[in-house]
Amino acid sequence: MLKATIEADIFRETIDAVSALVNECRLHVDEKGIRTITVDTSNVAMVSLELSASAFLTFAAEPCEIGLDIEKIRSMMSMIGKTDIVSLELDDSGKKLKISFGGYEYSITLLDTKTIRKDPNAPNLNLPATFEIPGIMFYDAIKASAMVSDKISLAVSAETCVFTMNADGDSDRIKRELAGEDVHYITCADAKSLFSLDYLKDMGKSISRADKVQIRLGTDHPVQFSFVYAGGKGSVGYLLAPRIEAD
Amino acid sequence: MLKATIEADIFRETIDAVSALVNECRLHVDEKGIRTITVDTSNVAMVSLELSASAFLTFAAEPCEIGLDIEKIRSMMSMIGKTDIVSLELDDSGKKLKISFGGYEYSITLLDTKTIRKDPNAPNLNLPATFEIPGIMFYDAIKASAMVSDKISLAVSAETCVFTMNADGDSDRIKRELAGEDVHYITCADAKSLFSLDYLKDMGKSISRADKVQIRLGTDHPVQFSFVYAGGKGSVGYLLAPRIEAD
Amino acid sequence: MLKATIEADIFRETIDAVSALVNECRLHVDEKGIRTITVDTSNVAMVSLELSASAFLTFAAEPCEIGLDIEKIRSMMSMIGKTDIVSLELDDSGKKLKISFGGYEYSITLLDTKTIRKDPNAPNLNLPATFEIPGIMFYDAIKASAMVSDKISLAVSAETCVFTMNADGDSDRIKRELAGEDVHYITCADAKSLFSLDYLKDMGKSISRADKVQIRLGTDHPVQFSFVYAGGKGSVGYLLAPRIEAD
Repeated sequence: MLKATIEADIFRETIDAVSALVNECRLHVDEKGIRTITVDTSNVAMVSLELSASAFLTFAAEPCEIGLDIEKIRSMMSMIGKTDIVSLELDDSGKKLKISFGGYEYSITLLDTKTIRKDPNAPNLNLPATFEIPGIMFYDAIKASAMVSDKISLAVSAETCVFTMNADGDSDRIKRELAGEDVHYITCADAKSLFSLDYLKDMGKSISRADKVQIRLGTDHPVQFSFVYAGGKGSVGYLLAPRIEAD
Repeated sequence: MLKATIEADIFRETIDAVSALVNECRLHVDEKGIRTITVDTSNVAMVSLELSASAFLTFAAEPCEIGLDIEKIRSMMSMIGKTDIVSLELDDSGKKLKISFGGYEYSITLLDTKTIRKDPNAPNLNLPATFEIPGIMFYDAIKASAMVSDKISLAVSAETCVFTMNADGDSDRIKRELAGEDVHYITCADAKSLFSLDYLKDMGKSISRADKVQIRLGTDHPVQFSFVYAGGKGSVGYLLAPRIEAD
Repeated sequence: MLKATIEADIFRETIDAVSALVNECRLHVDEKGIRTITVDTSNVAMVSLELSASAFLTFAAEPCEIGLDIEKIRSMMSMIGKTDIVSLELDDSGKKLKISFGGYEYSITLLDTKTIRKDPNAPNLNLPATFEIPGIMFYDAIKASAMVSDKISLAVSAETCVFTMNADGDSDRIKRELAGEDVHYITCADAKSLFSLDYLKDMGKSISRADKVQIRLGTDHPVQFSFVYAGGKGSVGYLLAPRIEAD
């Protein structure tokens, strides 16, 4: 059972964060709120999202699982006004979700949760460097890098405490260094890994809206991004496997 | 003979309303103004437009017929400034129309009116439900519906006086109900017909600019839309045949 | 050797003016500034550009030649903020140019200047009509003309001192006449030549930003456009061969 209302903005950020990586997901619903964890089809990236019941205007739920076609909902987003209240209601059969906003009633057939792959286990990673930077600075650097290459190295130097994003293309190179006030270190440690820019571009759009994104980095290890939204009542985590390249 | 000047805005709305359905049309010109009536190439939709001589800044005409390539004029629209005065002049041979604006002189070769199909007769229809709604509400609902389906049902309930737009897709559904202040009924009667969204999207752009569009609806009958523009000195009518579907 | 800083706006106009016609160019650098002259691949159009050392915020150079992939730099432009300071530095090997802005360091591999075709000689032309018009008026007329034709005739009448741009399409025609305050003649003389609109559209974007573009026109002769930018510290010249058509 689910019957809830939510501001359009928070609903949009929720959908955008998940649709950055996957077209469908299993939503876990209970009285505490909603959450999902899922990996992309090539098993390279993972997204997890939690949105507390208190982030909703009204929220009544009993534990259940919902199979969402995220892509369909995303395409409907353009019809939702910025200040609309979005109302969500699972029908009695549990097979349809009714999304209402601004006089519209949008009824979407849910996916059979049995057809959605099992929730992945969040891996336990030892990532020595942990720091925060403004989301928009991260995304801008990703966009610039994508112009010269399809991969980027993210690196922290324990000595200088400089965070370097470096994209080496066939003939050109883009380097962005962040230091001083732009980076806040929780732990400053040597770390350096290489990642696919395609995935980072997809994640970057959601990350760009966050005042601060926390990055956890290791050496030839996955990178972890996490940020909050909805006034702290929602949180998003991305995990991206590294590209390992022979020199 | 035709020699007239008109504000760019009114000229643009005139061209847009007709080009929504057809690429060419026969314009009837006389001392009272201009008018056209034409059906689209698949005979599913009809547009009629009248613009009074008083809607022009200056207007001098003798009765004549003009074969217009509407599509060509539409593509030139982007060059016309919002506050330009557009001057129209039929040349002596009657084969070219000179459209001048903002220092430009655009000369367009007219179509031989013999090559344009005969004016259709406006059918005499018995459409029981007649009501008015804001043009933009109609168009927004059409755009939303087009995301889940290619057809939409328009229905009025005599009992509740609710106007319902309902698009049933393969798995999803969009419903928009209008009642209360949003609908003004001239006659409230049971009516329900199904229409192609492709045509409604085309008409909808012009309709969206009208404060009020009058809709006349029957059951498994065509729908009629009419609205005024140019401060009431112009009027547009659309007629669309229903889609008849076996259940 | 080259080490210089420049405002983003001036850097952008410099790149745009050259990239309108070519993808790569040979930049001549010396203590007085930078300059280039190059023809497009089909030998129909030529661009020359000079930017004085005083247009830079700082400028230190020794004479050298740089082979630039203009297209690559243009694609990076979207990353440069409007108010950024762009810093240019040739590396010691002379094979890479480092372009820094807003925390980014963009390193681009230079082209071997031996692979770039030799600088063309600017021809000595006798073009009787010389006049200035606002750049935006020229570009707007070019855009309108491109809707009806792929060529345009530019003509000056010594008698009326009217500058006429006339595009004759298969069935339609666009004519734009400039006279009075819109044209400032240095020498008013009969001249009329026909040009390809494709090239004029490309040049037109840069020309449109110039308050005044000087046009030199002859009869069945090339046309010459010249304008200044960067507060008069930069100058751009375009030369375009005429299209000669049998009537």
